[in-house]
Amino acid sequence: MNEPMKNEIKNAPIGVFDSGIGGLTVVKELIKSLPGEDIIYLGDTARVPYGTKSGRTIIAYSHSNTEFLISKGIKLLVVACNTASSVSLPSLKNEFDIPVIGVIEPGARKAASVTKTGKIGVIGTPSTINSSAYKQAIENINSEIEVFSKACPLFVPLADEGWTEGEITERIAEQYLNPIKDTGIDVLVLGCTHYPLLKQTIRKVMGNQITLVDSAQETASQIKDILSKENLLNKNNSQSKREFYLTDISDTFLSVAGRFLGEKIAKIEMVDIVGTTTRPSL
Amino acid sequence: MNEPMKNEIKNAPIGVFDSGIGGLTVVKELIKSLPGEDIIYLGDTARVPYGTKSGRTIIAYSHSNTEFLISKGIKLLVVACNTASSVSLPSLKNEFDIPVIGVIEPGARKAASVTKTGKIGVIGTPSTINSSAYKQAIENINSEIEVFSKACPLFVPLADEGWTEGEITERIAEQYLNPIKDTGIDVLVLGCTHYPLLKQTIRKVMGNQITLVDSAQETASQIKDILSKENLLNKNNSQSKREFYLTDISDTFLSVAGRFLGEKIAKIEMVDIVGTTTRPSL
Repeated sequence: MNEPMKNEIKNAPIGVFDSGIGGLTVVKELIKSLPGEDIIYLGDTARVPYGTKSGRTIIAYSHSNTEFLISKGIKLLVVACNTASSVSLPSLKNEFDIPVIGVIEPGARKAASVTKTGKIGVIGTPSTINSSAYKQAIENINSEIEVFSKACPLFVPLADEGWTEGEITERIAEQYLNPIKDTGIDVLVLGCTHYPLLKQTIRKVMGNQITLVDSAQETASQIKDILSKENLLNKNNSQSKREFYLTDISDTFLSVAGRFLGEKIAKIEMVDIVGTTTRPSL
Repeated sequence: MNEPMKNEIKNAPIGVFDSGIGGLTVVKELIKSLPGEDIIYLGDTARVPYGTKSGRTIIAYSHSNTEFLISKGIKLLVVACNTASSVSLPSLKNEFDIPVIGVIEPGARKAASVTKTGKIGVIGTPSTINSSAYKQAIENINSEIEVFSKACPLFVPLADEGWTEGEITERIAEQYLNPIKDTGIDVLVLGCTHYPLLKQTIRKVMGNQITLVDSAQETASQIKDILSKENLLNKNNSQSKREFYLTDISDTFLSVAGRFLGEKIAKIEMVDIVGTTTRPSL
């Protein structure tokens, strides 16, 4: 590749998609570790949530999200959704010609590197847990590690509702977490981008001896490594830009998006990639 | 209309759509009160839930669902989803040339007819409550009735999770319902098709003095009236047929659908009306 072309790619934005706004927790970590990078975020809020849908549907949605971001000229794609990462990654890597990073592998790698008991817990949406993606990723790294998984379907609506602490949330967390707490795990992977918002409650239920792995942090750190290694870091950027697109904008999403990102979002644009303006033909 | 044509319409099925499987509670009541009618059900499980999405998106989804059912030759459309009823009904009635029945008006009419204190409570999803559809429908019937509304976003995921009773669900119900319990209402409208599954818990929190209005029952009863009045009842049907279509089929939906309908579903077909097999162009 010649130098001007390489520079053009370096200056291109990082694309991030999620089923909704949960992926903003990944953007938050990206901004922390790569402040010089431009970021384009797409939240597929018209079709959220992915966690209860079939693999076939999740793959189709992931492809249309990726096509939108590719049309914006991104240099690297982050699938900031555990469900989509667990189901769509092979298909996306096969179809598109840019680096594609999911949130599963970075979380799995971190968990495998810190466990001492050789027992790791993973929590996530029903789709993520049913896919066994974390279990497989961890066993690929070290086949002697035992993985205990638990789907926690109410955690996403609890985070959306803003009930991140308090007695009700603790009781629900106990109901989900007590069975894996008693297995001897010393690491728990928060396998859903919404779950870091419930970190304090999860910590309270699990106790201080257990390390919580936040996939968002690990993913940001892996992206930094890849861009460095490929010499693709954007070094000329004093004023990095961030663009936020949603496939549907409702009051609910606007009111919680800032909480997920940890800063105020200046502007969100609505984009129609799912045929809501033109009715699909039968 | 000539007699053979009228007979053909009489024998046509009733079409029912919902954002997911909650509308099966309406089908259950339809089967009870109109056992001779054929029913075609469409659950838009690829795009569920509607309750947190924008009005514009909900209207577009409602239109594509209706087009699918019309293509199946239905004689009457039931919008068995409170969110879609509250937002899309005027637009559907305007666009399509068959009777369109929502779940809001039957529930509102029943509530207005039984209240003695003139104070009615309404619970539903954020979209239904924000639309003020029940409030308006009740005030249109009797402008002196006071309506107290409360969105209960966690009730749908609780019903889906199967946590319909028990201490956690009661605590959540108290959190939502205590504020409207203290207003002097004597009727509470269950303004979401999922909520009848939580009826026992809601009854426990609200007490026996308060009448619970189940929109599903009232809707079935209104449909019977309309078909009788229009002379459109199917009277020649000894073996009524029921067809179930979903826009996405996942394990989660299959396992709970039977619980909503109250009987085993023999066959569910997956139908692509939302462009999941062919990726939408940008």
